[in-house]
Amino acid sequence: MTQNFCERVIKALDPKRLLCQLQELGEIGHDSSGGRTRLALTDADKEGRDQVVAWMRELDMSVTVDSIGNIFGVYAGQSVSPGIMMGSHIDTVANAGAYDGVYGVLAGLAVVRAFKTADVKPALPLVVAVFTNEEGARFQPDMLGSLVYVGGLPLDEALDTISVDGVRLGDELHRIGYDGPPQAKVVPPAAYLELHVEQGPVLDHEKTDIGVVEGVQGISWQEVSVSGEANHAGTTPMNLRFDAGCTAGRIISRMREITQESDTTLATVGSISFEPNVINVIPSRATLTIDLRDPNEQTLCAAEEMVESYLNAVSVLDAVEISSRRLARFAPVPFDADMISTVELCAHARGYTCHRMVSGAGHDAQMMARICPVGMIFVPSKDGLSHSPGEDTDAASLERGLRVLLDVVVTRLGI
Amino acid sequence: MTQNFCERVIKALDPKRLLCQLQELGEIGHDSSGGRTRLALTDADKEGRDQVVAWMRELDMSVTVDSIGNIFGVYAGQSVSPGIMMGSHIDTVANAGAYDGVYGVLAGLAVVRAFKTADVKPALPLVVAVFTNEEGARFQPDMLGSLVYVGGLPLDEALDTISVDGVRLGDELHRIGYDGPPQAKVVPPAAYLELHVEQGPVLDHEKTDIGVVEGVQGISWQEVSVSGEANHAGTTPMNLRFDAGCTAGRIISRMREITQESDTTLATVGSISFEPNVINVIPSRATLTIDLRDPNEQTLCAAEEMVESYLNAVSVLDAVEISSRRLARFAPVPFDADMISTVELCAHARGYTCHRMVSGAGHDAQMMARICPVGMIFVPSKDGLSHSPGEDTDAASLERGLRVLLDVVVTRLGI
Repeated sequence: MTQNFCERVIKALDPKRLLCQLQELGEIGHDSSGGRTRLALTDADKEGRDQVVAWMRELDMSVTVDSIGNIFGVYAGQSVSPGIMMGSHIDTVANAGAYDGVYGVLAGLAVVRAFKTADVKPALPLVVAVFTNEEGARFQPDMLGSLVYVGGLPLDEALDTISVDGVRLGDELHRIGYDGPPQAKVVPPAAYLELHVEQGPVLDHEKTDIGVVEGVQGISWQEVSVSGEANHAGTTPMNLRFDAGCTAGRIISRMREITQESDTTLATVGSISFEPNVINVIPSRATLTIDLRDPNEQTLCAAEEMVESYLNAVSVLDAVEISSRRLARFAPVPFDADMISTVELCAHARGYTCHRMVSGAGHDAQMMARICPVGMIFVPSKDGLSHSPGEDTDAASLERGLRVLLDVVVTRLGI
Repeated sequence: MTQNFCERVIKALDPKRLLCQLQELGEIGHDSSGGRTRLALTDADKEGRDQVVAWMRELDMSVTVDSIGNIFGVYAGQSVSPGIMMGSHIDTVANAGAYDGVYGVLAGLAVVRAFKTADVKPALPLVVAVFTNEEGARFQPDMLGSLVYVGGLPLDEALDTISVDGVRLGDELHRIGYDGPPQAKVVPPAAYLELHVEQGPVLDHEKTDIGVVEGVQGISWQEVSVSGEANHAGTTPMNLRFDAGCTAGRIISRMREITQESDTTLATVGSISFEPNVINVIPSRATLTIDLRDPNEQTLCAAEEMVESYLNAVSVLDAVEISSRRLARFAPVPFDADMISTVELCAHARGYTCHRMVSGAGHDAQMMARICPVGMIFVPSKDGLSHSPGEDTDAASLERGLRVLLDVVVTRLGI
């Protein structure tokens, strides 16, 4: 793309329109929390999808829905294939903020709009993707639509997934009219770009404009069960107790120490239950979850080993039985080095402060990384709040992220 | 009582009949756990009460029910008042064993039966008491009937107590026909004796026949709430977390250390909950209970102070807010020194091994100690199990306890 064309497109970018659309889509599924709830494939999700499709059509994009309900809007380029894909998701958790996912989709439309307004035909088609069920709040696993798209989960299995409210994914897709035909043809991506709010506090805390995402960290989830012996809290001497709750407390306390072995490991015990869970009964059983994350596979393995050897040791020390069950395990996903540099260069060129970082949350980008180079751009999330009506990113930050996205598209197309 | 009369009564004792009655009463309220559920003032409790009253009448006892539903069976003595009171309760927790409480009541009947069979009229009337709602499983507080009896809780307030299933205690008393008249006259006790299974593992663990109860330990219950900040487990660096769950883990771990300051202090965290209690969200709130016990008031206060200062310290260290709410506080109750010696002498005289100990659980005896000398006799509870269908005490132990009870009654009457 010539310098002239680039300048015309960049000049035509309309961040205000993006803000309006974020606002407008944020009204759909409005709930009593002051946030919005558009769980995947509900009526509210359908309404959101219909709105995005309408906006795609306004931009002369052709719209394709695949068999798992992913929506692809294609803005024609000088060649037919491959395309530059931008996107994310518009499903939400319950009581969500307005930006998570939606920002990446609508920023993609804003990029397309800039080309259309400038009347510049991109070298490659521009594809805006809306992936099904990224949140995993209604159907497991999360990032399901992008996972199926890249061939990581058989379509039939995905369609047979049963939601937390007991319905089949395939039936819900059909019900809301987003069950695309098996023969749906999607322009294959030469690259995938996802713009997203950070959903963590780092950029906001460090007052940094842009996060250059180097990849998604690895995740290790396990459920740990401690079995002791229920007994009367008032009559059982301390030395005759097999207190599962006490062991659980020690495990929780240990987690922080384990993270101190590296700068990057995160450990969280987010959920716990005691049985019988009565004030004057020594717990017979404690069940807790351990969420470990690290951008480096080796460090993640080391943390897992530290947890395992602690569980073994404390089980002997406290004379309780401990078992653990793996709930999920994802290796870290590194993004394309060239894409990382491109995002960083574009941010620098605009004078934005930026910061290479690893995404702590999962994103469709990590699935897309299986089939094409991926770039991901973060903007700050106020206080790191996300999955909450309090999720907030200011207009200036949203605009900065959009400008970097467009610059990367233009740069990428220019290559 | 002359030596001759004593021997006749002791010879007439029929431990087998007690075992049969324990078995028979244990069938009432039989539940699917293999145990029995006779929550206070339910139909099952009424059925149990009716059975005990029938057995009292078989023994020519006159039966009085007071306004809070306590049942007093009186076996006439040579004088009219005061009496020697024996007793306990027959209400149970859910899925209970057959002995907790019931043993003390039916052993009282066995003592009366020995006098009747031997055709010996006791110097003082023998009173067998069945106290209402000792367990506190359906109505709070526990030991309610004996508490009202000794004047520790106004009758009206007790009658207005609402159960966990939402009904008024007074209405339930009336419904099952155990609302005695306000003018009910009960023979005042010169002494109160309660025979009970230990509900703890000490006697069983030490292979000791009889526990000579010196008193009931003090209890301090509090609920501790830790407020942190919910955040994404994958995106929030360890140093930017306000993890209420992590603090809860440290508090739990600390409890064992606090008990190491004395030989007698017990500390239990029996119940816990996290909010939002999701695997990948840092807990914003953790609520846990702390149950502290000690037979010595000063030591109990010291333990409470250690907990409080730890809560203050960890709140600063972890930058979380901690509040605590007192749920219950009972000072230790020492029993009458003379009664303690009498129980011990009687056990020794029979060649039983015995052991002075403090009761960890609450018993009606601790309320009765407010108005008369109290003696309490424990027999071993297998593995310390109680409040469980697995509660078990062998026939020989049950017989030993009964013999000591009768010996104490005979000794006490002889004074």
